[in-house]
Amino acid sequence: MAFDPETLRYNDAGLIPAIAQEAETGEVLMMAWMNADSIRMTLEEGRVVYWSRSRASFWRKGDTSGHVQDLVEMRVDCDRDCLLLLVRQAGAACHTGRRNCFYTAVREGDEVEILEPGEGLAPQT
Amino acid sequence: MAFDPETLRYNDAGLIPAIAQEAETGEVLMMAWMNADSIRMTLEEGRVVYWSRSRASFWRKGDTSGHVQDLVEMRVDCDRDCLLLLVRQAGAACHTGRRNCFYTAVREGDEVEILEPGEGLAPQT
Repeated sequence: MAFDPETLRYNDAGLIPAIAQEAETGEVLMMAWMNADSIRMTLEEGRVVYWSRSRASFWRKGDTSGHVQDLVEMRVDCDRDCLLLLVRQAGAACHTGRRNCFYTAVREGDEVEILEPGEGLAPQT
Repeated sequence: MAFDPETLRYNDAGLIPAIAQEAETGEVLMMAWMNADSIRMTLEEGRVVYWSRSRASFWRKGDTSGHVQDLVEMRVDCDRDCLLLLVRQAGAACHTGRRNCFYTAVREGDEVEILEPGEGLAPQT
């Protein structure tokens, strides 16, 4: 069956959450939002385009930072209201310079930072 | 710093998205929603409790299905508006009987099912 972004279930703002996962390692990198047009652009370009809620505009990941996400595969969940994007991430996924956005863990009731900016990233050339 | 669920950023309905990931394999299992109370219950019980939007009630994952999610670690993202739950999943995470909810892939413009109900699950004893 041909995939049609219009058949997904969006929230009242026309958005659907998208989880980005590094295809090779399984690392969950970030969660952001897409609309039907950004989904179409992502599939056409093979490069992830989100919808920025704060800027109310398309957010072609990496356009300013260079930290592009190449799409390996898009997956849809059972309720059709969440996407999983398997990607190849260039550099840091997080705007803080960390490889992923989930760098704070709750351990024994405390918040602990478990990933430093730049940690585990390939050296810049 | 002590973790306080009230410091997270919730949507207008008081909810925050939570991604469940199998701790050992990195498999992304599902995405669901939590409120501050369900986060507290999850941390206290060591077992994942979501908020069911359709039933408007707590959803202690596995209470009816037996498909419990034991919490290994809760993580918070940089914007404090998304959670990553590392879990040990008993049985299927998805209500369709599949190991995870993201069993539909978009390949060459088509939707393709890539995981069967029961596939890859340990036999029921």
